[in-house]
Formats: sequence, C-alpha cells, structure tokens
Amino acid sequence: MNILEIITKKRDNQILTNEEIEYFVKGYTEGSIPDYQAASLLMAIYLNGMNEEETTNLTLSMAHSGDVLDLSNLGTVVDKHSTGGVGDKVTLILAPIIASLGVPVAKMSGRGLGFTGGTIDKLEAIPGYETNLSMEQFMQNVQNSKISLIGQTANLAPADKKLYALRDTIGCVENIPLIASSIMSKKIAAGASKIVIDVTCGNGAFMKDLEHAKQLSEMLIKIGKLAGKETVCVITNMEEPLGVSIGNSLEVIEAIQFLKGNMQEDVKDVVLTLGAHMLKLAKKSEDLEKNKQDMLTNIENGKALAKFKELVENQGGDVSYINTPEKFEKAKYILPVKATKSGYISSLPAQTVGEISRNLGAGRFKKEDGIEQNVGIVLAKKVGDEVNKGETIAYIHANSEQKAKQALEDLVQVYQYQSEKVIPLKSILS
Amino acid sequence: MNILEIITKKRDNQILTNEEIEYFVKGYTEGSIPDYQAASLLMAIYLNGMNEEETTNLTLSMAHSGDVLDLSNLGTVVDKHSTGGVGDKVTLILAPIIASLGVPVAKMSGRGLGFTGGTIDKLEAIPGYETNLSMEQFMQNVQNSKISLIGQTANLAPADKKLYALRDTIGCVENIPLIASSIMSKKIAAGASKIVIDVTCGNGAFMKDLEHAKQLSEMLIKIGKLAGKETVCVITNMEEPLGVSIGNSLEVIEAIQFLKGNMQEDVKDVVLTLGAHMLKLAKKSEDLEKNKQDMLTNIENGKALAKFKELVENQGGDVSYINTPEKFEKAKYILPVKATKSGYISSLPAQTVGEISRNLGAGRFKKEDGIEQNVGIVLAKKVGDEVNKGETIAYIHANSEQKAKQALEDLVQVYQYQSEKVIPLKSILS
Repeated sequence: MNILEIITKKRDNQILTNEEIEYFVKGYTEGSIPDYQAASLLMAIYLNGMNEEETTNLTLSMAHSGDVLDLSNLGTVVDKHSTGGVGDKVTLILAPIIASLGVPVAKMSGRGLGFTGGTIDKLEAIPGYETNLSMEQFMQNVQNSKISLIGQTANLAPADKKLYALRDTIGCVENIPLIASSIMSKKIAAGASKIVIDVTCGNGAFMKDLEHAKQLSEMLIKIGKLAGKETVCVITNMEEPLGVSIGNSLEVIEAIQFLKGNMQEDVKDVVLTLGAHMLKLAKKSEDLEKNKQDMLTNIENGKALAKFKELVENQGGDVSYINTPEKFEKAKYILPVKATKSGYISSLPAQTVGEISRNLGAGRFKKEDGIEQNVGIVLAKKVGDEVNKGETIAYIHANSEQKAKQALEDLVQVYQYQSEKVIPLKSILS
Repeated sequence: MNILEIITKKRDNQILTNEEIEYFVKGYTEGSIPDYQAASLLMAIYLNGMNEEETTNLTLSMAHSGDVLDLSNLGTVVDKHSTGGVGDKVTLILAPIIASLGVPVAKMSGRGLGFTGGTIDKLEAIPGYETNLSMEQFMQNVQNSKISLIGQTANLAPADKKLYALRDTIGCVENIPLIASSIMSKKIAAGASKIVIDVTCGNGAFMKDLEHAKQLSEMLIKIGKLAGKETVCVITNMEEPLGVSIGNSLEVIEAIQFLKGNMQEDVKDVVLTLGAHMLKLAKKSEDLEKNKQDMLTNIENGKALAKFKELVENQGGDVSYINTPEKFEKAKYILPVKATKSGYISSLPAQTVGEISRNLGAGRFKKEDGIEQNVGIVLAKKVGDEVNKGETIAYIHANSEQKAKQALEDLVQVYQYQSEKVIPLKSILS
C-alpha cells in the first residue's frame, strides 16, 4: 500500500478500504505523508465524495489517532455538540439542567474561531473558572456532581486537528463527509456513548440551507450507527443570532438569567428540544414532552441554577458572580443602536453580527489571539419585532471608543426593515 | 486575488481567468504558494478539467516562467516532440534528414525517466558528444550547419518542471489539459515557431488508447492555434517497441544503420510521416508524398548521414563511431532469447520491454541515477513474425550476469504467441 495508490483510487472515484483510510490518517498524523499528498487526496474526496462506510472509517481512524477517553464507569454519557453559531450559549444552560435531572454530563468543549464563539471562552469569563482539569478531577467531579465542563485535551483526535487546519487552506472545508467525520471523531475520542447534535442552519452556520443541513444530519446519524454511538440531530435556525447576547460574559449573563427563569423564546426552544432528546437517549423517558416538562420544573424549582453554581464552584469559579451577575465587569463604552426606519425587522444576519462582535474583541482572527471577555452586542430587537425610527434596537459593548463607533456604524447597516408584518423565525427547523 | 479563491473556483467547476492562472503559476514558481495549495488546485483541475483557453493560458504562463528562446533569426524553426515511448530513436534520424534538406533544426531534448528513454541520454552514448552548449554555440551551429541537438537549459519553463514533479507525487499525471500544457510550454519556451508532435499511443505510451490520443492531439493543436504556433499531431503506435533496439548506444547504432539505408519498416513509417509534416510546415512543399521522397533521396545519396556526422563533429563527438558503429563498446554479456513456442508473435508490450531495459541499467529509477550506455535489448522478432520454438527472438545486452539472466527470464514471458497468422501492427494510427 502506498499513498499515491490511495490518491489515485479516490481520484478515479473508487471506494477506499478501511486499511487505506487508516494508512492515510496514521501516516499524515505522524508526518510520513506530506501535506501536498494529503491535500490532493482531500480535494479528490471533496469532489468524488465518500460513502457512509468510508466516512465512518475516517471518523474512527481520526478518533483513535490520539487518546480515547473511557467514561464507561460514569454510566451512559450523552454528549451534546453544536455545529457552531452566533450567540449560542446552549451548553451553558443545557448541561446543568440535564445534570440536575441525574444524567451525567462529562463534556469537553472548544474555543471560538472565526465569527462563532466557543463554550470554553464563555466559561472563562467567570472569574476563577478553570477549564483545564486533570482527567482524574474531571471524572471525580462528574461522579460527585454529575457535571464537568472542560477544554479539549491536547491529544484528542490530533489527526482531525491537523487535517482541519489543512482543509482550511486548500478549499476543502464545506464538505459533508469531511465535516461529519471531523465532528464525530472528536465526540468519539471524548468518550461519548450517545450524542445529540445541534445542526445549525442558515446565514451564521456552516450549512446555509435546510437541504445541506439534512444531508449532514443524515451522515452524522449513519456514522453514529455504524460506530455504535446512537446519534440524534436537531436542525436549528442560525439565520439570526440565538438569544439576545453575543460576547463571552454577556452570554454567561444571559445563561444565568435563563436558569433563573428569564428565558428567551428561541433559546428555550433549542434548549428544551436538545435536552429532551438527551434525556430520551439517557433512558429517562421516551416521552419528549415529559422530558421538556421535567427540565422546566428544574428551572422553576432552582435545581438547574444550583447545579450550575455547583459546576462553577467545583471548577474554582467565583459563585458570587452567578448570584449577582451585575458583578461582571462592564465594558467601558455601552452605546445604544437606534432604528433607522419604522417598521418590522426583516433580517439580522447572524454571520455579520458575529463578525462585528469579533471586531469588538469578543472573538479571534488567529488561534493565538486573546479575547476581551466583556465586549459584544446585546440585541433589544430581533426579526419580527416592530420598531419605531429612533428606538433602541441593540447595545454595543466595547472597550475602545473607536471600536464602539465602528461597530455601531456596522450594526446599523445589518438590520433590515420592511413595512409589512414579519413572522418571527422558527427556532427548530427539523 | 488569493490562491484559496482560485482553488475554490476550480473546485466549484468555474473557469479560471488568465490573471488567476498567471497568479498561480508565478506564485508557485517563486515559492509564495506552497505545494499543498498547488496540489489541491491540480487535483481540482484533474477532476473538473480546463477548457482550451484555460489550458492555453496555463501553457503560456508556464512557458514565460523562465527564459523564452528567440530563434527568429534562424528563420522558421519547426520543432518535433514525442510524448514518449520505448525504442524511440526518431529524433536521432529525423533531425539530420530535415537539416540535410536545408530546414534548420534547433532542438532541445530531454533525458529518459520511467521506462521511456530520452534523446539526450542516447546522444551522450556517442563518445565526446557534448549536450551542454552555450546558447551562442547552439545558435551558431544551427546557422552554419542547420542543426544542433542539446539538452534543456535549466531555466526553460521552470514552472512546468516544478509542477510536473508535484503532479508525479499526487496522482495528477494522466490528465489531458495538464499533459498538453506541459508539452506545449516547453516547446514554446524553446523558441519553436511551428511544432510537429508524435503522440504515441498504446501500452508503452501515456495515452493507452486511440480515443485519448485523439483528445490529446486535439488539445495540442488548439493550444498551438491559440498561442500562434501552428501544430500538427501524428498518432503513432506504441503497443510494441519502435524499431529493434532498446537502450542508448544500441539505439544510436540502429539510427546510424537507418541513415545508411538499413531501415526498419515501423521506424521508417514514423520518420517519413513526421518529417513530411515538418517539411510542409517549413514550406518546402505542400505535398507530403514529395517530402517523403525527398527524405528518402537524402538517405540514398548519403546527405542525411553526412549531416548526422556534421552534427556529431560540431558537438565534439567522435565521428569514427558513426563511420564504424562496431566501435561502440559492447556489453559484457549478450544472451540470446529463444522462442518458447512455435507460431506467430501476437504481443510484445512496449512498457514491459522498457522496464526490463531499465532494470538492465539503460534507464533511471530516480532522476539522480546514472545509466549504462551499452545495455539493453535487441529484438530479432516482433509482432506478426512467425517463429519456431527455440529460434532466437531477441538479445539481452547486460554488464552483469545476474541482470542478464533476470532480463532473459522476464523477456521470455513478455512474448505472446498464437497459432493463427498475426497481422503486423500499423505504425501510424491517425
């Protein structure tokens, strides 16, 4: 076997064997297969595709390229993943609710890159919160408190890390088998036994339309099945940002408010739908509606919030910030954004809002960049809302006057209006 | 403009502009575009193709990536090229014939790689022959003697050299636009005003069947037209080796014998057909049959052989070897190969014969390898010949007993026989 034969085979639209895929993944991770050969194979895969079996084999090869966590002594661990979005604070809310219902949450999350945020960056906005725990501490927290949220260890699916970085430079990102295997390899390496995936769809997501989101969902489910990891996908709307806050501490505050019962409708739809499936997979109940009701009960009775505080405390965070979210340091400049027209808001593209937030310092342009935890955007009006000209539609949170002014100028242009009534966007698409 | 946009465009099956192609070729040649990005673009080109205009733009960009020779003061220079084969000594024969008819031959040739030989290696089998002349000396020889045959200068189409080396490692060799642009870029850089291309077809050629050979021919002719370099293609048979000798000095000897009037039929067909087109392009006569007759006349009257000696003398070679080919040092072991059956020879695949010859030391496995000039194979029988079991069908020329025995064993298996009469292969296919 050699890499040239493997490239030629995929170039000629043939199916690669498991041995060939393993040979490639191992050789590329070790460095014996150079970038240029991997690049040509990836482009051949992009254009000629991979079937379910090939994609599953790629997934498993990448999952086993580094450490694979064994969470079996924690019982059935249901992992949750999102394909990325703007204002997506779902994990912060969902994890404590699920744990409060007795289902273990042992989750590794990522950092933000591009215009989308990352759960780990958000958690680090809580003073003291430690995202790097030892595996022993991580496991012990889950055993004691049913919950731990940490960053990905360095050696989790290193093949995926290396291949993703290459794909990014050679025009091979937007490909369903490659996206699906990347997601699933990390979930499998992170020890999940069952998986719920939030497949975001629309302007601010990888998948721009429902058709592609469905294709990705089907592929994820098939990989899960072939790999013995039951997987459920929920397609959610990412045309406009999720909820009202974009930015790290701003999103933590929104999550705390949610757990205190002040729930944005779209976030609530997504949290309850994903959570109901997680509880179903964890064998709490087959009845999704009952599961949703159980989740709401634990918000009302304060158990979900108490679990969040327990999580923060376990990981060294200052719980007083959860009790009194006003303690989070405010950005230096908070500028209101005013409606330029009267009418109904017809469009508020998530990607552009995410980019403005990144420009304010909430996100990164390069992996090495630092972030500012207290900057971002709070939306007062979203698609479907009626506004009068001059009414406040959003707030810019910035630490530099110049950045604040630029963001204000940019955000004003993002909002689109129309005179006829606009129906608010559906949160759950499929 | 950036390379990722260009890759994405071709990936999405769009047509690249001349500016985009130039940006890529320039950037890759300079090194500002890395191998892995070039690799992914080449695979996208391989799978999605390029139209005639894109292929011509790639050709011209590669041609102008280094020196472009100006041969205009020599008059109309008609270049000749072969897409490669086994036993192909046509240039050695054709060049002096054409020059002897007053048409200038200013030709740069390549070395052998893989199982195919190269004209420069063959010329160097003549003791003293210098293939590295200064450009001044090269031009002066053509002005004085109408002929010079040298190696390619280092800076001739460097983009093609770099891209070809990459294509070889990433499964992107066998692609008509890429093959066509590679050939034409070198011809254009070498200063040709008109071009005759021997498109070899069959087992021992790049193009394995007539359909692909015709596609390549059409692409070459279209590039020639768009680039203002009138191009004629002749498709010749490379199912079995051309002529009777394979190996460097062995082929030189066959070429000398041809020029002395001892012509193998297949070589004669190819030489006369290609030459007649060269003479037509050089405006000697529109009449191809007349041109062939003129060529035969100059073989009969000795002018073609005299021109070959003049070429050898001009480039420092020892003419006594041309006068007395027996002077060429023989290989240490010359073993006869015997027919294993009685009947008609039905098949003698050129590629395998070329590989056996390379194993004997006549060719290279890596660019850096040296070659042995006196080893190879002389065929006594070819497809269509009737033989009796035990009759000599070929001779192995080797410098090591072990290699000789291995080649004998291999060659015996290459010859295929059948009891019914076999029609000899046609030399000119289209």
